[in-house]
Amino acid sequence: AGAGAGAGAEPGPGAPFPLSSVRLRRLLRDSAREKAAFVHGGPSGLWGDTDAVLILEKTPFQEEKIEELLRKHTKLELQMANDIYSTYRLYPPPELSEIKTTVVYPATEKHLQKYLRQEVHLIRESWEDYKNITLPFIQSQSFSIQWVYNILEKKAEADRIIHENQDPSNGFVLVPDFKWNQNQLYDLYLIALVQRRDVKSLRDLTAEHLPLLKNILQEGKEAIAKRFGVPGSQLRIYLHYQPSYYHLHVHFTALGYDAPGTSVERAHLLADVIDNLVLDSSYYQKRALTFALRADEPLLKKFQEAGRV
Amino acid sequence: AGAGAGAGAEPGPGAPFPLSSVRLRRLLRDSAREKAAFVHGGPSGLWGDTDAVLILEKTPFQEEKIEELLRKHTKLELQMANDIYSTYRLYPPPELSEIKTTVVYPATEKHLQKYLRQEVHLIRESWEDYKNITLPFIQSQSFSIQWVYNILEKKAEADRIIHENQDPSNGFVLVPDFKWNQNQLYDLYLIALVQRRDVKSLRDLTAEHLPLLKNILQEGKEAIAKRFGVPGSQLRIYLHYQPSYYHLHVHFTALGYDAPGTSVERAHLLADVIDNLVLDSSYYQKRALTFALRADEPLLKKFQEAGRV
Repeated sequence: AGAGAGAGAEPGPGAPFPLSSVRLRRLLRDSAREKAAFVHGGPSGLWGDTDAVLILEKTPFQEEKIEELLRKHTKLELQMANDIYSTYRLYPPPELSEIKTTVVYPATEKHLQKYLRQEVHLIRESWEDYKNITLPFIQSQSFSIQWVYNILEKKAEADRIIHENQDPSNGFVLVPDFKWNQNQLYDLYLIALVQRRDVKSLRDLTAEHLPLLKNILQEGKEAIAKRFGVPGSQLRIYLHYQPSYYHLHVHFTALGYDAPGTSVERAHLLADVIDNLVLDSSYYQKRALTFALRADEPLLKKFQEAGRV
Repeated sequence: AGAGAGAGAEPGPGAPFPLSSVRLRRLLRDSAREKAAFVHGGPSGLWGDTDAVLILEKTPFQEEKIEELLRKHTKLELQMANDIYSTYRLYPPPELSEIKTTVVYPATEKHLQKYLRQEVHLIRESWEDYKNITLPFIQSQSFSIQWVYNILEKKAEADRIIHENQDPSNGFVLVPDFKWNQNQLYDLYLIALVQRRDVKSLRDLTAEHLPLLKNILQEGKEAIAKRFGVPGSQLRIYLHYQPSYYHLHVHFTALGYDAPGTSVERAHLLADVIDNLVLDSSYYQKRALTFALRADEPLLKKFQEAGRV
């Protein structure tokens, strides 16, 4: 890629991009929910073989244009009718169907990778899978969690601590998550990091940890109500499995905020975890757990090598 | 609302809805992230003052139409250019900018409330709460599920059935969900509706239902792999609690698709439900279950009256 070797009139970065003559090289990623597509494209002709990334995104509805949209449709097709429900395909006139288009040109390999979607695979991990595949993998990794220890030892972010229980077995520190800028409450996001360093994840939990977990649930809610005015009934409190680092931590997010990582194949409500451990101390050393792995994650390769995917 | 008092030619539920002459009464809710709008509308003229809910949703991009979209735009406006980045407003021709439109007509106050944006509260429902609050509430409601029976009896949508197991106890029908337009696989969404009519929700399930649940898991995956080429490891298969209607059904969505209703406070993986019932036949008649209720939902009022919120 780069400015390219084409002779003659190849325009530089400042010139308008010939959007109409773009050839689709690859669909990097699309988001059906957000009605967006990330495209690896290249202009044809004079512009040579330089790469571009195009981001197409349909725009939200504007309230004041909705009646016009319904009135001025160019075509309307009934798809389905059942009782009081019916669905249609409605084709609006061009002026009412803007697409926001972002062009990155010239794009490097790094830009392309940034937008490329990885395939995801669902794993249903039995306890045996955990012992034979996941645990050896975690132990072979030396992902640093020094940043967690820095917080626990007040070597970093000491001024950000919202609540602290210093008990070495049953204590924890509550801090705002990096993803939350604390400017507004609708995307509130905090993390409780446990003081003890011998609990990697959900898989290690037994009834021994109930006092710790109950402290996090109770004191975490109280601290957030006191500091931010958000009651416990408006909080989603959960663990991830797999977590992104293997030092036990609990997520607190605003219930109305559709935060990443809240879906059923990754999140486990702390209240459910507590009830399961009350029911059976070795619940998490028995039960199969489901999680998704992206195609480029090394743990997926381990499951594939073991013939479990 | 209802069929209304208008004299003369007012059409019934079966007649085509006069979408072009709809008046916007209120915007119930919009989702900027999902490019969707939920509208309280009413037809004008002969149709009187009955209410309708209209759900407008822009459709995802189709990969094979993207080049055409770029080539055939009717207008293109440069908004911003900075170094390698530039943004445009692109106006596509009507045939490339479908809007999925769902009409609920006539709509009752309940339908309007369902789509109106509200504050949410988390409920942790014990089995006693279920028996004393939730179950009497469900029984007092008469939300029609005629549309489900229409599908099971082949009175509607018969041509949309993807798979069917006719066993009256352990059988089910698999159909595309209304929300999926079937144009692309990445927002794949299907629903399995059980044949038997005596299972309201997760709360009714015991080990007796294991053959039914295993059929849905196994045959559902196979049918989707066969028809759409999507393997089971790329599917999220789950129940909702609370469900939006009390006839047992199971959701199948593409794993890569962040579908609404997949979050941990509502979704229960079918594989987990099966394992829980194997562990303990009365698991769902013992365990507390968490769900969120919007401020206007009558069930929340019942929990408030009982002092449980």
